[in-house]
Amino acid sequence: MKLSSLKQGRDGRLVIVSRDLTRATDAFFIVPTLQQALDDWEKVEPRLRDLAEQLEHGSVPSFRFHEHDCASPLPRSYQWADGSAYVNHVELVRKARGAEMPQSFWTDPLMYQGGSDSFLGPRDPIIAVSEAQGIDFEAEIAVITDDVPMGATREEAANAIRLVVLVNDVSLRNLIPAELAKGFGFFQSKPSSAFSPVAVTPDELNDAWDGGKVHLPLLSTLNDKPFGRPNAGVDMTFDFPTLIAHAAKTRPLGAGTIIGSGTVSNKDEGGGPGKPIDDGGLGYSCLAEQRTVETILHGEARTPFMRFGDTVRIEMKDKEGHSIFGAIEQEVVAYRKET
Amino acid sequence: MKLSSLKQGRDGRLVIVSRDLTRATDAFFIVPTLQQALDDWEKVEPRLRDLAEQLEHGSVPSFRFHEHDCASPLPRSYQWADGSAYVNHVELVRKARGAEMPQSFWTDPLMYQGGSDSFLGPRDPIIAVSEAQGIDFEAEIAVITDDVPMGATREEAANAIRLVVLVNDVSLRNLIPAELAKGFGFFQSKPSSAFSPVAVTPDELNDAWDGGKVHLPLLSTLNDKPFGRPNAGVDMTFDFPTLIAHAAKTRPLGAGTIIGSGTVSNKDEGGGPGKPIDDGGLGYSCLAEQRTVETILHGEARTPFMRFGDTVRIEMKDKEGHSIFGAIEQEVVAYRKET
Repeated sequence: MKLSSLKQGRDGRLVIVSRDLTRATDAFFIVPTLQQALDDWEKVEPRLRDLAEQLEHGSVPSFRFHEHDCASPLPRSYQWADGSAYVNHVELVRKARGAEMPQSFWTDPLMYQGGSDSFLGPRDPIIAVSEAQGIDFEAEIAVITDDVPMGATREEAANAIRLVVLVNDVSLRNLIPAELAKGFGFFQSKPSSAFSPVAVTPDELNDAWDGGKVHLPLLSTLNDKPFGRPNAGVDMTFDFPTLIAHAAKTRPLGAGTIIGSGTVSNKDEGGGPGKPIDDGGLGYSCLAEQRTVETILHGEARTPFMRFGDTVRIEMKDKEGHSIFGAIEQEVVAYRKET
Repeated sequence: MKLSSLKQGRDGRLVIVSRDLTRATDAFFIVPTLQQALDDWEKVEPRLRDLAEQLEHGSVPSFRFHEHDCASPLPRSYQWADGSAYVNHVELVRKARGAEMPQSFWTDPLMYQGGSDSFLGPRDPIIAVSEAQGIDFEAEIAVITDDVPMGATREEAANAIRLVVLVNDVSLRNLIPAELAKGFGFFQSKPSSAFSPVAVTPDELNDAWDGGKVHLPLLSTLNDKPFGRPNAGVDMTFDFPTLIAHAAKTRPLGAGTIIGSGTVSNKDEGGGPGKPIDDGGLGYSCLAEQRTVETILHGEARTPFMRFGDTVRIEMKDKEGHSIFGAIEQEVVAYRKET
């Protein structure tokens, strides 16, 4: 089943989307918003699935689905917690600044609490005050959970996964060092994130979903040029059930909690840092990683961060080449004070 | 106007509470939940105020108000961001572990993103796995805002303050060092927070509210013994408009955003660290600060963290001694796996 929230009010209008992303039908008469569906999933899911089947059969009224009409599936949520499951990425970033990564990072997940009150739509611009802030994208996978009790086991966590989405975890790189040095984590350096037009139930991923990871390449394109295609199922040190259980260690998680994978990153075949796509590699899911590899290889970063007018596109395709979630596609635009 | 959310469903049932906290009347027919009221404040506020006036006059049906029936005013919210506005507190904690505090901490607010999907009610137990986690309370003030545009000025931020509440920002002190060392801020070390039974519009504070701070003592009691009474209007380096503008620097804030002050803390009259109430001082708003002062004075902390069965009470009274927000009162209880 594929679900989307068309832009309307603060929480969007829930629609069911056809598997091929061409058509949609209103789910309003079942439940008006995705958050409300998640609040009462056990009761609502069978009815939404019935409707999805009718949509596939063409037996309900439907309309043309346009990705640019979408808000994020949850236009705002009660929790957005982002892991760093691709530890390879973390190790690289540290290496570039000459810092050892503690051994515990391979066993104890890194996770930060993100802002969840003002997500961007998948085609909304990334608005930034200055290019000097080091504007970057981060292509990630995330899952949306049901209620998770405090102290949940890995298995309980796995059973609470309801939906899968893509994320652009926008980052302002040049604000990060000073902010992290203060010791309280990210805040201004992580502006609003954007999510894919469509959220899908795990069964839509077929055998690309093993209950914990998504085994497909995550495609990032910068200004229409392929930038990354690492496989999200490879080098993911902590799978989603592990990340969820980590988040629920000392408190319960509310329905609609979004847990992110962190930037998807694959090592090179030889075990070293990944190569750019132009050099025959799988590329990267953020500019910072490419810059890090450049720093390690050449002593300095050569790729600039995003500039006003740059566009990033993030997408995932099934084995037949069909888009699963629709595409996040965002242009960086200069902030102008509302008057 | 005083507002409360009685326990019901995920978001509570909005009621108006009388100024003296003895009676309440349903606001359901105007708007069912506080979040929905905040989503449409301009339209809803005048109608809620009319109802509050009728309640004071006894001209609407009302019922006895019991604080133990309350959820937190927002039982879950889209954002909970907590500042550390009482820099005195931060400096002390650093001093105890022999670390200098950077000068910039006096001009650049510390703030962390907290979990907001599963707040505790004001009389709910604090459930913890082990006393060894170092269970502590933190008595704070917080404001709840309307929408705040990205890049808001201090004045715009001030105008977006809708409600004031008290908070118990529960902390697991012994998990903090390892978690902060990972660099991504608090996560497991900050379990669910609890808020006062009642949220009030700033005008309810009369001249104790100057538009940015609350000039009244914040009363903390541990096992029925007075523990702290620092004045929340004193030594608050960053007032609420400054904290809100900080949070809104790189992204907008959604209606219902909760911004906390951090642990309220006053210096001693002589400018040194505060003294315990037993020694004629104003005491503290968390155990960690008392332990910090003990460490500075005696070389070691003497006061233990909270144990199972301990109860903390947090309250604020007006100049006539009447409770403004009702009381947070929470017992620490051992976690037991749900079966």
